[in-house]
Amino acid sequence: MSLDGYIARPDDDISWLEAVEKEGEDYGYSKFTAKVDTVILGRRTYEKVLSMGIGFPHANKECYIITRKPQAPIGKLKFYTGDLKVLIKDLKAQEGGTIFCDGGAQVASMLLHDRLVDEFIISVIPILLGDGIRLFKAGLPEQQLQLLNATNYDTGLVQLHYKRK
Amino acid sequence: MSLDGYIARPDDDISWLEAVEKEGEDYGYSKFTAKVDTVILGRRTYEKVLSMGIGFPHANKECYIITRKPQAPIGKLKFYTGDLKVLIKDLKAQEGGTIFCDGGAQVASMLLHDRLVDEFIISVIPILLGDGIRLFKAGLPEQQLQLLNATNYDTGLVQLHYKRK
Repeated sequence: MSLDGYIARPDDDISWLEAVEKEGEDYGYSKFTAKVDTVILGRRTYEKVLSMGIGFPHANKECYIITRKPQAPIGKLKFYTGDLKVLIKDLKAQEGGTIFCDGGAQVASMLLHDRLVDEFIISVIPILLGDGIRLFKAGLPEQQLQLLNATNYDTGLVQLHYKRK
Repeated sequence: MSLDGYIARPDDDISWLEAVEKEGEDYGYSKFTAKVDTVILGRRTYEKVLSMGIGFPHANKECYIITRKPQAPIGKLKFYTGDLKVLIKDLKAQEGGTIFCDGGAQVASMLLHDRLVDEFIISVIPILLGDGIRLFKAGLPEQQLQLLNATNYDTGLVQLHYKRK
């Protein structure tokens, strides 16, 4: 997110992330996703990813797109129209690796609302956007966190890693 | 601020800051204020400080309380009803040390609106408040930042220090 808490400009634009793009630096992303076996994405974020023309990055993992519109699965990618809370509880009850919520704002809000996020990895980008789509919307429940790690990168990105207390 | 960007609960409560209170640890505050010769405070923050019964901490510095209600000065403490932009420009034109904007949300918004803040020291508290008074309100101009420093404390507080590019 930007220092002022936005994950995109009001029109969904994320080109400001280019400020921290650096050849060979993925900010721990591939190391993290290697532990992940299930990915949850909002429909809007899914379409954003597709529109970027880089292919779908989670094709080899169990993937759930949270949407209101039922759709046939594409390989391991399922479109989920049910209760997100039920999905998470079912997934957590199964054996397996990390469940990765890769955005966006709406899915994050639903998960935060029900205190279903166990760990937070937040990359703070050195910019004040001024306005946009907030990662943490207003009206969520209070949650105490424990800092696990904070890492500074020479691009000015600071990555904060917390777990829920 | 909390990880979700709040400096107080909706009712101005800041008791959640107790989570990072630690005997002998002031998070660089006294070292920083030693360089400060002028303090700017919003009226609401000023009254909050007074209500805490700890005395006014900036009595030995030039201090401006930004308010709409004219009032006689108390020692070096002045009540300023004019244009904040003019005040800052006048102060910056003078010889002297650092100008410290010690809150609150309204004064910060005015300064950010006019890009008058040169440096930001943001302490991120390990909590999601869920709702409250935002440090960075919506509708401010975009500003590129440069990370100068990020410091982790064992209480879980992470202090981010940026300058405006």
